[in-house]
Amino acid sequence: MKVGMIGLGKMGLNLVKNMIDNKIEVVGFDLNSDSIDKAASYGAQTAVDTQDLVDKLDSPRIVWVMVPAGKPTNSTIDDLIEKLDAGNILIDGGNSNYKDNLEQNKRTTAAGIKFFDAGTSGGMEGALEGGNFMVGGDDPEAWKTIEPLFKAISVKDGYLYTGKLGSGHYLKMVHNGIEYGEMQAIAEGFEVLEGSQFDYDYEAVAKLWNHGSVIRGWLMELAEDAFSKDPKLDQIAGRMHSSGEGKWTLEEAMNMRIPTPVIALSLMMRYRSMQDDTFTGKVVAALRHEFGGHAVDKCDN
Amino acid sequence: MKVGMIGLGKMGLNLVKNMIDNKIEVVGFDLNSDSIDKAASYGAQTAVDTQDLVDKLDSPRIVWVMVPAGKPTNSTIDDLIEKLDAGNILIDGGNSNYKDNLEQNKRTTAAGIKFFDAGTSGGMEGALEGGNFMVGGDDPEAWKTIEPLFKAISVKDGYLYTGKLGSGHYLKMVHNGIEYGEMQAIAEGFEVLEGSQFDYDYEAVAKLWNHGSVIRGWLMELAEDAFSKDPKLDQIAGRMHSSGEGKWTLEEAMNMRIPTPVIALSLMMRYRSMQDDTFTGKVVAALRHEFGGHAVDKCDN
Repeated sequence: MKVGMIGLGKMGLNLVKNMIDNKIEVVGFDLNSDSIDKAASYGAQTAVDTQDLVDKLDSPRIVWVMVPAGKPTNSTIDDLIEKLDAGNILIDGGNSNYKDNLEQNKRTTAAGIKFFDAGTSGGMEGALEGGNFMVGGDDPEAWKTIEPLFKAISVKDGYLYTGKLGSGHYLKMVHNGIEYGEMQAIAEGFEVLEGSQFDYDYEAVAKLWNHGSVIRGWLMELAEDAFSKDPKLDQIAGRMHSSGEGKWTLEEAMNMRIPTPVIALSLMMRYRSMQDDTFTGKVVAALRHEFGGHAVDKCDN
Repeated sequence: MKVGMIGLGKMGLNLVKNMIDNKIEVVGFDLNSDSIDKAASYGAQTAVDTQDLVDKLDSPRIVWVMVPAGKPTNSTIDDLIEKLDAGNILIDGGNSNYKDNLEQNKRTTAAGIKFFDAGTSGGMEGALEGGNFMVGGDDPEAWKTIEPLFKAISVKDGYLYTGKLGSGHYLKMVHNGIEYGEMQAIAEGFEVLEGSQFDYDYEAVAKLWNHGSVIRGWLMELAEDAFSKDPKLDQIAGRMHSSGEGKWTLEEAMNMRIPTPVIALSLMMRYRSMQDDTFTGKVVAALRHEFGGHAVDKCDN
């Protein structure tokens, strides 16, 4: 089996290595030539542009797009719809919004291209050593063609054909929504411990909780690793970036009027963490001062 | 080593069996004679009351209290403070509030009794086959005496001496707070999937997520088990009972003014799940009607 990989960032390169380690041939392309060199060092063929990549694949071609979600992915897919033939297989492996995929699917379907949306979990380690894949696509027959690819690069039982196109990234979106909530829950717990009258060793606590407790899991193992390197996380600022899936999960829940307060608050706490001060805070402080004469803290500007 | 076990409910009985399987002698007592018979069938000595239990132990006596948290535990501990001698070891293994333990510790310390508060995680399975224990107590020397007991009944690396008396149940409290948040996050995710346009097999999804995804963990394994028995959980009402630790975690956070919105909302959603209708809902509906003439849904009473 031969796969074209477009996008050789951290995830894409790790997937290339994973594929080659599992006897899948790869033709790689990226806009960054250093990344192309790295893919070549793993044993990948390389391409100078997407047309060259398409030309170097055998029919039915299989192309995996692993570029940043949003515009980069969407324009790459638009480009490939022009270049691929009917019966070719196109996989969007990025963190795309399923709604983008649903739109693209109209054009791929019209062109006879078999389109799959593959959500990927397991982080960089998973991409390299065996990942977790949630794959949607309207053609179960074409799925049979690419199932061996996913089997090769997954951990055991680490892939699932989830049904209709869009269902893969939708499931990945919800996976990340759950991840937001779980991470915030874990983090709040450690903040309560940090504020308490007791003196806990957080690495020891996380390690303990990973051995037989109800809350054992990979995120707690990652917490154990993090505390082992930096016992009080003194070197890490508490600014919680986010890349979209938590927000999409909340939007989806709101559109369906499904209450998801934990996912919502996880997201809001991420946004709050990116603010040094808030206009909300200023307004509340001002109102308390207006009605009750309560003191306000003055800014130093 | 010989341990007196007071309280032979599901957890206590499983711990008795676990101890006996690991060559710890046990003297068991419970107010329920069926439970005493069951402990005897596991090979435990039995006692007719707490005095008899104390009399059947060797010095330094070790007594483990495993009765429901709150009044039952507190009155049992009060009783044992009267009956135990200086140098004896008393372990509260229930889900007690650490503040109760701090109060009791004044009296045990005055009596020379070595008091430990042991939080237990891992569920009934853990109690039976190897649990997870967080143990606080002011006397590190006495801890050395009982460490072999905890080592015998824990999974590997499944126990930790957490420091001062109170720190064991405090840690267990926070563990449960995290558990509330993680469970609610997982559950919200599945509700979004259930509301979606896609048709997921939740057992397959949970199984997938347990193989290489970021959110793999024991709670997701339990979800997989639950969905394998009842694919849409049709047989289970969505009423979420709670037994205190989540509320205590939130109280603790509020007393320290630490924001823990995910743990808070997990708890509130449990309370909401126990209500068929809400007075909040009535008030909001009434106000919308008052200011905007919006229709209200009438009650059928």
